[in-house]
Amino acid sequence: MHKIKVLQNRVKNLFEGRNYIDNPKELYDPIQYSLSQGGKRLRPLLSLISCSMFGGNLKEVENSAIGLEIFHNFTLLHDDIMDQSDLRRGMPTVYKKWDTNTAILSGDTMFVIAYQYVTASSPDILVDVLKVFNQTAKEVCEGQQFDMNFEKEANTSIEDYMEMIRLKTAVLIAAALKIGAIAAKAPKDEWERIYEFGILIGLAFQLRDDFLDAFGDVDVFGKPIGNDIITNKKTYLFLKAYENADKNSKVELDAAFALSGKEKVNNVLDLYAKFGVKTDTENKIIQLHDEAMDILKQIDINNDNKDELYLFLSQLIKREV
Amino acid sequence: MHKIKVLQNRVKNLFEGRNYIDNPKELYDPIQYSLSQGGKRLRPLLSLISCSMFGGNLKEVENSAIGLEIFHNFTLLHDDIMDQSDLRRGMPTVYKKWDTNTAILSGDTMFVIAYQYVTASSPDILVDVLKVFNQTAKEVCEGQQFDMNFEKEANTSIEDYMEMIRLKTAVLIAAALKIGAIAAKAPKDEWERIYEFGILIGLAFQLRDDFLDAFGDVDVFGKPIGNDIITNKKTYLFLKAYENADKNSKVELDAAFALSGKEKVNNVLDLYAKFGVKTDTENKIIQLHDEAMDILKQIDINNDNKDELYLFLSQLIKREV
Repeated sequence: MHKIKVLQNRVKNLFEGRNYIDNPKELYDPIQYSLSQGGKRLRPLLSLISCSMFGGNLKEVENSAIGLEIFHNFTLLHDDIMDQSDLRRGMPTVYKKWDTNTAILSGDTMFVIAYQYVTASSPDILVDVLKVFNQTAKEVCEGQQFDMNFEKEANTSIEDYMEMIRLKTAVLIAAALKIGAIAAKAPKDEWERIYEFGILIGLAFQLRDDFLDAFGDVDVFGKPIGNDIITNKKTYLFLKAYENADKNSKVELDAAFALSGKEKVNNVLDLYAKFGVKTDTENKIIQLHDEAMDILKQIDINNDNKDELYLFLSQLIKREV
Repeated sequence: MHKIKVLQNRVKNLFEGRNYIDNPKELYDPIQYSLSQGGKRLRPLLSLISCSMFGGNLKEVENSAIGLEIFHNFTLLHDDIMDQSDLRRGMPTVYKKWDTNTAILSGDTMFVIAYQYVTASSPDILVDVLKVFNQTAKEVCEGQQFDMNFEKEANTSIEDYMEMIRLKTAVLIAAALKIGAIAAKAPKDEWERIYEFGILIGLAFQLRDDFLDAFGDVDVFGKPIGNDIITNKKTYLFLKAYENADKNSKVELDAAFALSGKEKVNNVLDLYAKFGVKTDTENKIIQLHDEAMDILKQIDINNDNKDELYLFLSQLIKREV
């Protein structure tokens, strides 16, 4: 098992200096812009960690790992149009810097490039990798659609929300890990275990994101605090607050969400505290984390090999990496 | 070699009753709408014709043929947003019937579904089919970008135009034929020959489309005549007119294109006749057709097997099918 630092460096090298510039430049410049912004490169890293953990040859997973990262960035390009997001990683989004048509077509092209990398996998793992990749890509689209539906719905249950983030976020994290196991030629039972592990970690990761928007440190989180509150986004916290509030308290929540600016954020945060939303969310994250670790324990490999993944993911959920 | 009618029926059966409805319906309803409108199903038919011509088993090409058709329809969904087209096959486009976000995300999902069909190819041909499919998908995006660029440019050469329609239209027709040859396990030299043949046919097909917009019979063409003229679209005819016109005549063309409605169409058509555009375009189509047939002759299979393809494509370029 390689140390995380080694794998992180290897992922960095996979992307550093990679050039997507081609003709016509109107199509490829936005791709270069999007893919050279960096980001955590979390999904390729998880593929390498998983492949290494199962004793695989990292060369076998690298092309798919690059494909997963490019796919993820493609979804951001299109999501940013649909959500009308102006900033991404502190930079103007492609749709804002260029226009909607550019973000659509450059996004489509990135999707093809992602498939070109996946196609470069060894023939003996190609079909299995592709099946995971296809299914995941479809589910990510479904997740985005559910997310957009929720913004128009009056009543969204926490159960619906968990299913939405499973599709929109968790399946890609789980797929990254599963593709690592496929590339390492681990037994098929283990593909499913690491996938289920990834789903739970992905859910915890998204709830942590929701949590930090309300209770995070702006310097660590990298985004302004309270943005979800300002935009009335239906996060786990939002839905939990309404679930926990009795009939009278719902009026208080409605009133707080009808305010604006800093006053709105402070009032909502006070109610989140009053209705136990902070504790409930933290507990849910711990529960998902523990369930994930129980699955990791069942995976039949040397425990030493699991340590790096265990440590990295614990830090990830705390958002220390 | 199967008769074209048999293959056309087989393609019809491939799509008839195919159901894309799934959850969330906001995502899948537009896919069902788009894919049940029919259309010529030209690309899957070409794959089947090619596979049959090379003596292959049609079962081997059917999944890719479906994938090619779904890919083609995905590009239409996104193109219709970019080109702000309100009608497609006489029906409201997805972006018009629903909205831009729906057309983006349902389009993305169709792209994945196309890959799911391609992935279902036999493992022994999968890598070769995927490579063609990926490269083609990328080039179609490049073609759409060049097309959009041209609408903003003052000077577009006929050479640039031919390269644009090669990418936007011809490569997918060529890929459909090549994938048929791959599925039939034809020798690699033949893959390239049928591909080059497809490029020439694809170019001729697009020029025929340009031609019929100006000189076609509305009942046969299925679209109103003169639409390209009304919208100042840079077609082969438009570019050829300016190429053929001397300095003084260019002023006449400018004046005609500055008009509107029926007067505009009639004036432009008169100038097209005056500058020999009709004859030049017809000659170019014949030239491309003849070059294609020369390549077809070089393909090392029984001439009887080529007859059906020869006949079908001659009719296609005349738009009798």
